[in-house]
Order: sequence, then structure tokens, then C-alpha cells
Amino acid sequence: MRSQYLRGSGRKMYFGRIAVIFFIISISEAKSVAKSLNKCQTLLSDDLINEIASYKDVKEEIFRYVTEGDFKSKTYDELAKFVDKFGARPSGSQVLEDSIDYMIQITKDEDINDIVTEELEVPHWIREQEKITMLEPRSKHIAVLGLGKSVSTPPEGITAEVIVFSNFDQLAETPRQDIDGKIVLFDPIFTTYAETVVYRSQGAVKAAEKGATASLVRSIAPFSINTPHTGSQYYSDSVPKIPTAAITLEDADLIRRFYDRGEKVVLNIKMTSSYETKISRNTIIDYKGIENPEKLVIVSGHIDSWDVGQGAMDDGGGLFISWAAPVILKRLNLRPKRTIRSIFWTAEELGLIGAYDYEERHRNESNNINFIMESDEGTFSPLGLVVAGNEEARCIIAEILKLFESINASTLVESDSPGSDIAVIVKTGIPGASLHNANEKYFWFHHTEGDTMNVESPEELDLCAAFWTAVSYIIADISSDIPR
Amino acid sequence: MRSQYLRGSGRKMYFGRIAVIFFIISISEAKSVAKSLNKCQTLLSDDLINEIASYKDVKEEIFRYVTEGDFKSKTYDELAKFVDKFGARPSGSQVLEDSIDYMIQITKDEDINDIVTEELEVPHWIREQEKITMLEPRSKHIAVLGLGKSVSTPPEGITAEVIVFSNFDQLAETPRQDIDGKIVLFDPIFTTYAETVVYRSQGAVKAAEKGATASLVRSIAPFSINTPHTGSQYYSDSVPKIPTAAITLEDADLIRRFYDRGEKVVLNIKMTSSYETKISRNTIIDYKGIENPEKLVIVSGHIDSWDVGQGAMDDGGGLFISWAAPVILKRLNLRPKRTIRSIFWTAEELGLIGAYDYEERHRNESNNINFIMESDEGTFSPLGLVVAGNEEARCIIAEILKLFESINASTLVESDSPGSDIAVIVKTGIPGASLHNANEKYFWFHHTEGDTMNVESPEELDLCAAFWTAVSYIIADISSDIPR
Repeated sequence: MRSQYLRGSGRKMYFGRIAVIFFIISISEAKSVAKSLNKCQTLLSDDLINEIASYKDVKEEIFRYVTEGDFKSKTYDELAKFVDKFGARPSGSQVLEDSIDYMIQITKDEDINDIVTEELEVPHWIREQEKITMLEPRSKHIAVLGLGKSVSTPPEGITAEVIVFSNFDQLAETPRQDIDGKIVLFDPIFTTYAETVVYRSQGAVKAAEKGATASLVRSIAPFSINTPHTGSQYYSDSVPKIPTAAITLEDADLIRRFYDRGEKVVLNIKMTSSYETKISRNTIIDYKGIENPEKLVIVSGHIDSWDVGQGAMDDGGGLFISWAAPVILKRLNLRPKRTIRSIFWTAEELGLIGAYDYEERHRNESNNINFIMESDEGTFSPLGLVVAGNEEARCIIAEILKLFESINASTLVESDSPGSDIAVIVKTGIPGASLHNANEKYFWFHHTEGDTMNVESPEELDLCAAFWTAVSYIIADISSDIPR
Repeated sequence: MRSQYLRGSGRKMYFGRIAVIFFIISISEAKSVAKSLNKCQTLLSDDLINEIASYKDVKEEIFRYVTEGDFKSKTYDELAKFVDKFGARPSGSQVLEDSIDYMIQITKDEDINDIVTEELEVPHWIREQEKITMLEPRSKHIAVLGLGKSVSTPPEGITAEVIVFSNFDQLAETPRQDIDGKIVLFDPIFTTYAETVVYRSQGAVKAAEKGATASLVRSIAPFSINTPHTGSQYYSDSVPKIPTAAITLEDADLIRRFYDRGEKVVLNIKMTSSYETKISRNTIIDYKGIENPEKLVIVSGHIDSWDVGQGAMDDGGGLFISWAAPVILKRLNLRPKRTIRSIFWTAEELGLIGAYDYEERHRNESNNINFIMESDEGTFSPLGLVVAGNEEARCIIAEILKLFESINASTLVESDSPGSDIAVIVKTGIPGASLHNANEKYFWFHHTEGDTMNVESPEELDLCAAFWTAVSYIIADISSDIPR
């Protein structure tokens, strides 16, 4: 997941200087859901409500098959085989292309053969040497992960004093001559991802505008065991491109303490990387509908990952439950009226590149998208959906979600911009949803070496796969389109 | 903390393959405490009970001063200045000796001048290059921390196939020819430290006995963000010394999955280190008693740390609350009948070297130790004490702990071997206690780069410092010695 923010209010618990955020649906949101649901009784016909309720049996058939039957643990096992075999799958790499071929093969092995790939240009940024050493006030190795597309330092590195800012206002208020030639460290304390990620994505540009020679950011995370978190950042053509990297919460806070005590902090930063453009592919798998095959219910996740960890959580889980949906339906011989399309987005992490390409390429047929779904915020226990769409659309989804009360997955969170890749398509007016799940610890592991199978659970993946399959099947099969 | 195990039963919560253990006092232990307390009513005189209760006011004076007055946040601030200045303080290093000098200086700055140091020989093991690369089934960097005193590999490293064992029984049952020349990985799932640490401390010897060329251990920890944990291990003179290291939970579990799928795993291990003997010092600070200065109530923590992180938790916190006790009493002009002795143990991590030296050197005056206390399992919220001693001794301590009910720190856990360094002295029959605190996450950070100020809390350190000071003062001041 690249730049998604989680809705709901944040309840903070402090563990030392570590803020742990529990995302919960705020009271005002809960009220707005309740208000909407009252309106739903007038918006939806009794026939439609009864029709949706009639899917209880098929939903239960899917859950039995996935959580107790032949598919039990299969999503976890297949995900493990995949991420163990390929590891990280960065945009533009050969391993990403090999992993795409592998996904196509295991889909064909399920006798699902309606598969196309669409080629597009993607960035290929390769991390090489990365080393930061504190020289003053004492010698210390600083753990580092360069940010996406960061330029290199000179071979001898950049040696400069550090100036620390908690926010962009402090930077703006500081005279240029106090920043010129220095390394800027932004050390915002994590509140929500949306609030703090701007210091990662825009830090280099803002610092360079003031003459900084490099910029660092306290990793965008609520918790750390000296863990640096990488991520995307965006240069501006009108500002010098300076090297930029994330350091750990611990080292950022150490530098802050030195700085606040008036002790001069000098770092040497050595970073090298290369950057070019390569060809990658979006993968599109259709499980054709029997009545309106031209109408699409899309389930999706991205297949690329950052170049650290295994990309098991971001977004292996989303990839595999979206792979599982047509596979499970095929195995159960459940064929809906509309087509279920699985999309494996490429190059999400470097800027939703695959999604932008898809939107542009398929714009003239966008009327066919009945509903678009994405999982890219974890596949922990499913809680419901984050839904964009008009009131009637949300009412239909809310009615469908009632079928999942027994697994506590009937929460509908309203958002105008759910998901990451699908936000590109939803903003054109197409209704859609992202998976709402118990992802309290998501940002502990996000974009780190710790994004591995160890954060995944077979039971939770089974629940997500069954939920994803049942929801997409019902939307693809009910008599009513999702209105716009 | 080196090889301490936490008492109480473990309640496990699984997060993927990550077991999180919550240590709670078991019902049987609670019953045994209740039974003891019933006996206490007959063992302790009403006069003594009333006398102990009369320390309520002085206890409150200490807590006000430390949690609201001039000492508020001082333990945290002083600990931060110390660990920021010195960082890790490995046994035998110059930085450890400098940090000892610093502690002596800040004690003298408080006008406490009754300070001696006792020189002793300590191991000085220096970690140099450490690199593990998976060669088969695919190329992957494996995060690593060599274990204490590990020998080096040849310069080209050791390249060999991996064989995985969950426990020593499996190793024992496997023919030597199946292990000979291979790298052994022990991958026990963390239950308690005591149960699993043997695979770290004895793994190299057990593997070498079967002809292994190197041994690895899944880090002894319940949680990880790809975090390797170092620690001590012990070679045998009768078995070849083979290189030995800890890898992360994630990489151990990856290797296990490959192994269970029948895929051959080949690693290259490159490790270099050096080992020699140096001189270090135990530091002994006496705050002299006014009536029986020869009688000692000892508070202690160790000043050395592993060579990763800052040693803020292990054992900076214990060191600083033991430093704070005489300082706070001096500042409040509270002088007990007996002497309060602060000891800063050296070279704990390499085998309780400082404690063994102290025990031997002071054996002929051991009758003077009235009670010995140690904090080396975290300085999170204090919960009480883990106490060794006869029934009457425990009854007196339990009566004192009643004074701390308002901060929920009145729990007495019985143990015959509390603490790590003091266990050396307690086993000679001297009553003692270690700090019982809310250290559920202790082993998340233990012996890692994540052992920094970020796991410490000013408020919790204040509570620990006040508790440590008040308990030691009361024991040092009451009319009754702690019986043996």
C-alpha cells in the first residue's frame, strides 16, 4: 500500500516515545452509517432486500469450503510458496515478471484460462550501497533505507551537520542560511499515516528548496525495533534533487535528543542507486459471467512490492485473496451473472503506475465496471468494507454485509477514496470498496524487512478469502447493478 | 539480563507464527502466597507489623519527590544522557570503563563520595564482519548477530547445507552422518526464555558433537520485525568450537518452510571476531547507615551491555534506579540505620563475571549482607518483588510491599533464584529480591539494536526509582534484620 490513509479516529497508547494507534470507527461515523441505513429502508425494495438475504446459503457454502473444506489454509500455503520463491518483487525487476508468469501458471492450473496481460512502462529504481555514519557527537552506525527514486550521493558521501524539524512550518520559518548545506531531519511523531507520510513523500523537495544537501525522515511508523521503513517520495523538476532516506524511530529520537541538548550532530551519508525504465504488466483474469459477461465486478491487489522483506502483507495477501475469488467459485461451480475480473496491478509502490495505465486504456469501457474492489491494507481478520458510491450503492453493499454478521465483518465505512490503486478508478465516479480489516499493526511492518509470512495467519487469510469471494460473487450475481 | 527466567505461567497469543507471552502469576502461585501470608500473622510480631506500617509517610515523601518534585523525570533524563553519550558498553571495552568513570563522577556530583571500584579480568569479544547469504534455493541476505565468543569462519566463509531441528531430542535421534559437515539450525518457537534459551547457549556444542560445521539459532524472542537477538553461549573444551549465530524469526521460519517442502537450503556464513581478556571494574557506592553501617542492604544493576543497541533496558534502567536510591535518600536527608550499598556489576552479559568476583572477594563478610536486590528484567511499571529467603524473611518483605498497594506494586513472587547477578550470592543463602515489573515486551527488544531509550518511559522509571528507593530504605531502617 502506497499512500492510503486509514479512516476512523485514532486512539493512541504510548509505549515510551512509541505511539501505538488503534483505528476505530468514530462515533460520528457510526452515526452517519446509522442515518444512511435508515434511508436504505426507503431506497431498497423489499424484493432486493429479500434477494440479498437469499444468498445466505451460498455464502455459507463458500465459507465451509474455505475455512473447513479443501481450500482450508490454501490461501496461506499458496502465498507462502509464492513469496518464499520470489521474495521481494520491486517494480521493473525480472523477479517481478517471473512472479507474474507464476501467477498466470497457477491460475491456468485451475483451468481458468481467460487471462491477458497489458504491458506498460514502469520505473526501475535499484538500491545499491546505503550507509549512514554519525561522526559527531560520537561514532555510531545509523540504520537506513533510502526512499524510492532517491539520487545517489557523491562516492565519498555527504558529510554535514543535521538540523531537525518536527514539521514543515518550522522549516518554513527558519532562514535559508540556517539550513543551507545541512542535512535536514524531519522527525514527526506518527499519528496517522496520512498525517505523517507527507514528510516522507515531500521532505526532499521541501528541504532542497531551503538549500539542504540531503533529507532524512523518521520512519513513518508507530512502532519499531530499530526498523527503517522505505517508501515513495516525489522530486520536483524545479528544485535540486537531493539524496533522501528513512532512519529508524530510535535513531531519529537519538538525534533529536542530542539536538535539543545543543550538541552538534554530524552525519556522513553514502547512498548509491540506479534508475531506469522497464516494461512490466498488469494481469487481468476473467471468470466470465453467464448472463452479462460484459459487466465487471473487479477484485484486485498489487503484485509488486518494495525491495525489502517478502511483500507478504503489502500486498501478497491482497493479491492472493483476489486470485482465490475466481478459483474458489470455479471449484464450487458457482458462476455469477456478471464477470468477476481479478486484476494484479503492477508497479503500485512507485506511484500506482499499473492502475493509471489500466484506467486510461479501459476508459471507454468504464461503464462496464459494476463495482471495483481492492485489498491493499492487510488481510488480517475481515471487518467489512470501506465503500465509495452513492447512497443507494452503499445501501446495497450494507445489505450484503449483513450476511457477514456472524464473523463480525458487516461494518461499512464510508469513504470517497477507498484503496490505493482503485482510487484512480473510483475518482472517475465508479463505485468501489477496499477491505476493512483488523490491521492495527499494519504500519509496524509496512515497507520493512519485517513484511514476511510471519505477520500472516492461515485462519485470517481463510476468512478474508471467503469474505472476498462471497461478497464479489453476490455483487456479480444479484439482479440489480450497483448504481452510480 | 543474561539467563534469567521469568516465573509465572505464560498465556500465549499468536500473531501469525509470532507467539506473544503474557507473564501472569499463576493461580497456584497466588495460593501459595496467600498461604504464606496466613503464616505471616503468626511469624511477625504486632510491633514489627506496626513499625513497618509507620513508614507510610516516608514512603509518600519519597514518591512525592520522585514523581512530582525535583526528581521528576530525572532517572529517565540521566539514563538518556548516559546511554546517548556512551551507547553500547560491551565487556572489556574502553567505552565501558569510560562509562564507569562517568557514573562515579555523577555520584560524586551528588556529594556521595564513599565509592570504591574492584578490578577483575573480563572477556572482551569483538564482533567484526558478520554476513550470511542464502545461496539455495534462492539468493537472499540473512540478517544475523553472532553469539558471544563465537569463533570466526575461514575468510571465504562456510558454505554448507542446512539441517533444521526444533529440539535437542531430534538432533540426538539423527545419525551423525546426516549432520556431519552441515550447518545446524535450531528453530524452537519461543515459549519462555528459560525453555528456549538453551538452544542459544548450548546449540554450538550440541551441534558440534554431531559433526556440524556451524550452528544457527532462531532468535530467542516472542516477536520480531526481522530482528536478530544476540546473547551468550558456552563452548566445551572437549568439542570443536564452531561458529554460531542468531538469525531472525522470519528467516528461520523461511528456512524451515523450504526444509519441510524438501528444498535444499545452502548458506554461506562469514563471521570474524576477536577475543581477549581485559580489566574492568565493579563499582561499589556506600550510603552509610547511622546505627549499623557494617550491615548492608544492596541495590544493583549491571553497567555493561551487549554490543548492540544502547543497553537502555538491559540494564541501563536497573543501573539508574540503583544509582538513584542513595541519591534520592541523600537529597531528602533520609539516612537509614543500615548502609545502602549500590553495586554496578561489570561483565554480566558474558557470564556474571562481576558478580562471581564480588561473591568470592567478599565471602568472608557475607554475614553483613542483610538483603540484596537487583533490577535486570526491565524497569517498566513496578509490580512488586521476586523474593528469595526463608518464610519469615518473605513475610517481612510482604508486609513492606503492602505499603505499595496504591501503585499496584505489592505483589510478592516467590523464587529460590531471583535476578541474574545476585543469583550468585542468593544461592549462598543470603535473602534477596529482583524487581517484578510489567515487562511483557522485555524479550521483544532484549539483546537487539532496539534496546534503546524508545522502550523507556519517564513515568515508569520514576515509579521504579521511587519504589526501589523506598523499599531499600525501609529494609535498611527497620528494627529487625532480614532473617536467614
